[in-house]
Amino acid sequence: MRAVVFDGTAGVRLETVPEPRIDSPEDAIVRVRRAAVCGTDLHVLAHPHGLPEGSVLGHEFAGDVVAVGSEVRALSSGDRVAGADYTACGRCWWCRHGDHWECPHRQFFGTGSAFGPPLPGCQAEFVRVPFADTVLRTLPPDLPLDAAVLVGDTLATGFASVQRADLRPGDTVVVVGGGPVGQLTSLVAQACGAGSVVLVEPVASRREAAVAEGAVAATPEEAQAVVERITDGRGADAVVDAVGGATGLDTALGLVRRRGTVVSVGLHLPGGWRMPTDRAFADELTLRFAIGDVMRDGDSLLALLRSGAIDPASVVSEVVPLTAAPEAYERMAGRHTLKALIAV
Amino acid sequence: MRAVVFDGTAGVRLETVPEPRIDSPEDAIVRVRRAAVCGTDLHVLAHPHGLPEGSVLGHEFAGDVVAVGSEVRALSSGDRVAGADYTACGRCWWCRHGDHWECPHRQFFGTGSAFGPPLPGCQAEFVRVPFADTVLRTLPPDLPLDAAVLVGDTLATGFASVQRADLRPGDTVVVVGGGPVGQLTSLVAQACGAGSVVLVEPVASRREAAVAEGAVAATPEEAQAVVERITDGRGADAVVDAVGGATGLDTALGLVRRRGTVVSVGLHLPGGWRMPTDRAFADELTLRFAIGDVMRDGDSLLALLRSGAIDPASVVSEVVPLTAAPEAYERMAGRHTLKALIAV
Amino acid sequence: MRAVVFDGTAGVRLETVPEPRIDSPEDAIVRVRRAAVCGTDLHVLAHPHGLPEGSVLGHEFAGDVVAVGSEVRALSSGDRVAGADYTACGRCWWCRHGDHWECPHRQFFGTGSAFGPPLPGCQAEFVRVPFADTVLRTLPPDLPLDAAVLVGDTLATGFASVQRADLRPGDTVVVVGGGPVGQLTSLVAQACGAGSVVLVEPVASRREAAVAEGAVAATPEEAQAVVERITDGRGADAVVDAVGGATGLDTALGLVRRRGTVVSVGLHLPGGWRMPTDRAFADELTLRFAIGDVMRDGDSLLALLRSGAIDPASVVSEVVPLTAAPEAYERMAGRHTLKALIAV
Amino acid sequence: MRAVVFDGTAGVRLETVPEPRIDSPEDAIVRVRRAAVCGTDLHVLAHPHGLPEGSVLGHEFAGDVVAVGSEVRALSSGDRVAGADYTACGRCWWCRHGDHWECPHRQFFGTGSAFGPPLPGCQAEFVRVPFADTVLRTLPPDLPLDAAVLVGDTLATGFASVQRADLRPGDTVVVVGGGPVGQLTSLVAQACGAGSVVLVEPVASRREAAVAEGAVAATPEEAQAVVERITDGRGADAVVDAVGGATGLDTALGLVRRRGTVVSVGLHLPGGWRMPTDRAFADELTLRFAIGDVMRDGDSLLALLRSGAIDPASVVSEVVPLTAAPEAYERMAGRHTLKALIAV
Repeated sequence: MRAVVFDGTAGVRLETVPEPRIDSPEDAIVRVRRAAVCGTDLHVLAHPHGLPEGSVLGHEFAGDVVAVGSEVRALSSGDRVAGADYTACGRCWWCRHGDHWECPHRQFFGTGSAFGPPLPGCQAEFVRVPFADTVLRTLPPDLPLDAAVLVGDTLATGFASVQRADLRPGDTVVVVGGGPVGQLTSLVAQACGAGSVVLVEPVASRREAAVAEGAVAATPEEAQAVVERITDGRGADAVVDAVGGATGLDTALGLVRRRGTVVSVGLHLPGGWRMPTDRAFADELTLRFAIGDVMRDGDSLLALLRSGAIDPASVVSEVVPLTAAPEAYERMAGRHTLKALIAV
Repeated sequence: MRAVVFDGTAGVRLETVPEPRIDSPEDAIVRVRRAAVCGTDLHVLAHPHGLPEGSVLGHEFAGDVVAVGSEVRALSSGDRVAGADYTACGRCWWCRHGDHWECPHRQFFGTGSAFGPPLPGCQAEFVRVPFADTVLRTLPPDLPLDAAVLVGDTLATGFASVQRADLRPGDTVVVVGGGPVGQLTSLVAQACGAGSVVLVEPVASRREAAVAEGAVAATPEEAQAVVERITDGRGADAVVDAVGGATGLDTALGLVRRRGTVVSVGLHLPGGWRMPTDRAFADELTLRFAIGDVMRDGDSLLALLRSGAIDPASVVSEVVPLTAAPEAYERMAGRHTLKALIAV
Repeated sequence: MRAVVFDGTAGVRLETVPEPRIDSPEDAIVRVRRAAVCGTDLHVLAHPHGLPEGSVLGHEFAGDVVAVGSEVRALSSGDRVAGADYTACGRCWWCRHGDHWECPHRQFFGTGSAFGPPLPGCQAEFVRVPFADTVLRTLPPDLPLDAAVLVGDTLATGFASVQRADLRPGDTVVVVGGGPVGQLTSLVAQACGAGSVVLVEPVASRREAAVAEGAVAATPEEAQAVVERITDGRGADAVVDAVGGATGLDTALGLVRRRGTVVSVGLHLPGGWRMPTDRAFADELTLRFAIGDVMRDGDSLLALLRSGAIDPASVVSEVVPLTAAPEAYERMAGRHTLKALIAV
Repeated sequence: MRAVVFDGTAGVRLETVPEPRIDSPEDAIVRVRRAAVCGTDLHVLAHPHGLPEGSVLGHEFAGDVVAVGSEVRALSSGDRVAGADYTACGRCWWCRHGDHWECPHRQFFGTGSAFGPPLPGCQAEFVRVPFADTVLRTLPPDLPLDAAVLVGDTLATGFASVQRADLRPGDTVVVVGGGPVGQLTSLVAQACGAGSVVLVEPVASRREAAVAEGAVAATPEEAQAVVERITDGRGADAVVDAVGGATGLDTALGLVRRRGTVVSVGLHLPGGWRMPTDRAFADELTLRFAIGDVMRDGDSLLALLRSGAIDPASVVSEVVPLTAAPEAYERMAGRHTLKALIAV
């Protein structure tokens, strides 16, 4: 089959690779219909970890089940599904508590060994899905694939960040960073009780996208004044850092009110961050980190999509065929597009 | 001053009555700018309880503070405010727990002695407000009066019903009854995490109003089929009964799923209701009753209004001068209009 | 093997029956070490429904896994386990939401067809457990069997009732009924944040048992005065009805405060109950029904047991051999003992 | 009157100072019966900030109201009360949300200008209490003063830390630091649903005190092994850092499980702390800071005390007369005693 693979030098190429087969009785094989390109893919290419040349990339997908192992119970061939971006067994203490990310059987599709033992990705005609009963979620019949493909990672991440913020109705929410996760965080917050949502982002087109979807937008320079005006000078009730690193956290702490909450879903590399604990203590702040989990949140997400309360496809910039995936990677890396889908 | 008063025979008339004055150091006098006519007014006229002829009616209002008692701290003359529909002291065990309805100092504006000691109503040029620091809420500067007037009762009631439903994001919510409270319950549910909201109502114009504001609508006959289709046959996660009585509760129980929640905000008269406890037990149902409380929920509500997440003025059918209030009462009683405001 | 079976006429007898075998790849066979006799057993004997003479009884058990089907993943022969009292698939929408009682694959051990398709009970040397990965829970190594046997039903029921009460720390909790479920509800409430727990019960020995375990006790006649004294006249924040029927609910409503919560875990037969909806509305009451679910709550329960925070064995009156089970049934039916265990 | 005052050189002395008088209509004067010496007093003496020689110290107290201002409504002379350690107006946005610490009218008794404008302390015969309706809480008639005096700060702080930890029943809680706050945190956690509570403390007598009150104890060296054994290697569900600084936070992060919560109630000075954000992100940690608030939590706390669920007097090492207060300060500073009370 054809697949997008790592070219060994920070880029991707199209290649013909063997089709995956059922390896374990809990596996399923999915005929991929849509895959997405994610900022994590770009990060993995720039900093490959246990990712041999030729590894199939990609971890966001929707498609059709074409084969199931003998112990798969909840799925059949022909089912239309979306997948989580990583696997979990569904039976351990962590999975029982809804914390699939912590499952010892975690493998992250298409990212080498950065987040667990390697597992071939989904930017291909077929993908093998371990623990299929847990990792795949059947889709409502009328849900467009361009929305469904984002459920497993980008939307699940935005959702997790909002859930961790424990919003009270009417809360003012700031989202730092207007990439795909930030944009969907804004949509989820608006659907789940936020009053004003302020998206902070230096790139004008991303600010405009947020405003078109109901948010207030601000440049980093304007952010503090905008937030103070909306909150009568108190600061934001919750800030979601969708940038990561010291930059994201410092920006977030600068905008959150006393006794407010910062949720970080951005990437954090080794080296740490100097937290102003004296202020955090005096102001009783909360800082939480969050990772998406469609295995836990899929029913909520699909209900929000099916009702039209959220349309994640609003962040899709382009849908390209598999053959054009390498160029789509380049446009995303250059920040010329927000989110590219691959129609397989 | 001019005021809408009970005519002693199930109707209202305009009359000149003495202006209210500060009676206690915690009182304020509000120059009313908008008052609303509420289903509770119609009920009180039909079933007056401790309501002498000539009593000033009305309990939903917004306006300007024109005088404050010596112990009022949070308000000054000139402040633009909306009021709660009943009073509470703000200091007792109940008030400390956010349950102002249970305060022993409760008086309900303009309803005779139905819900506590009598207190003249607000469908007048001025109204005296006891415990003003607690009962009045300062309005954001740019909030239209036609929205603000509904915060204290109709919107607060819809909000309380949604809060009591403990929604999970994406939950399917049914609202039984498309009167003003039902319509605003639909708006609040949509803003606070619901997936599909189904409004069940026999009157076509009310169904259309709900659809125009994002709900799915169904006649009582269609309701079960519609809900089953949306929920894959499970039934609604939560049902808000905005009708009351055995009719409202039976309808609600017929539409709620196993382990779901029914919240009743409709009126319940003596006589009780035969609850099917065998089914309620086998299905682990929850049944809750709720009454609005803007003293508890006002900050959330005003933040949702200020951000545009909810516009309660969407239920307003007409705004009439005080002199035309008697005809507005008649149109609401005949169900020719949904919600009438009085511009004083 | 030997088993306690229905004698066809409201009683039990010991009988030799065939040993169960693995029927499905998700089954396990458990060598029962402890089984309990439950009020539900007594009810089923008095009102048998789809329970042929010779049916093996019992639904509370702990023991050792001796065989597992080919698709059982989380268990092995030799594991020490306790079981839920009913089965659930672990994969459907309901199970995913932690509502195993609502699973369409529910079968209730040893109760005929009262609560689903029949499934032989556990008051026997061996029991077959469908969906074993979901229905069985591995026990901490040092947990005594006399405590472990109660995790699956009696304790899980008490726990569910307290969870549904949404306690705030310090809340006054009333438990109506001092049977085994009521006694364990008292223990759970005390461990999970209650202030005073008042157990209401006519039988003196049951009141004494509650007092010995930290509760306040009251006869039904004394209850109102006791609760008012403790709560400064407000009434109980939460009442758990562990009796059921109109009696249990009426008693509960007479003791709960305004805006309080009643949770009923007692049995409710057809015929319904006349709810005083006018008071329930005016006082904003909450009424919930609850059924135990160790598949959802088992980790919490076992952690509370392992730490010593709760010792459910405090309700055990006697431990008898299988051969003495018929007499133990009689003593429980006559209310001469609180809870009998069978050591198999 | 006699009072404990700052001697200008890191110590205290007894001195005669003028009795306080009602300054504002919302003030009350309390005849102090018990005051406590707190670690914060020791810190303030070592690092005085805006604390002139002769300032009256102390912020934990219980006693009798002897005078009230003209606008005090909830209190009368003769009422037996405990006080919060800082003031709040009770009416602003922050107070309405239960966040009294954030109130702009905050003054902290007896600590100079470290936490707001100076306010004379309570280690004296009388203390003036601003916003008395909000700051004072009436005591149940039979609550011993040696318990009541701790409600306003030490116990409220322990309670706030446990509330912020959002415990699930059965959670394993670690408390880092066995001072008075750590000891009471252990009691609150046990009463509010924790399974095992592990107190980590180098001083043997403090570990013994914790064990006597139901906790597991460990030295810092043993802590990891103890926690892993109890939690099957996962780590603690929640860790309360009652030490503060980088030491407390690093210890806490070393003991918390993946997706667990750290709550810090220890003191944090300027300089910050290097947070290992890569691990916090990969493990989805939560870090929260908490400060006690008896104005918010007093009803819960007093109900827990009244029922006997918690007895904070278990941490009291000695009760001394006012004249012996200077020596009691010295013994606490030298860690020879855990908690000293002053009987005035």
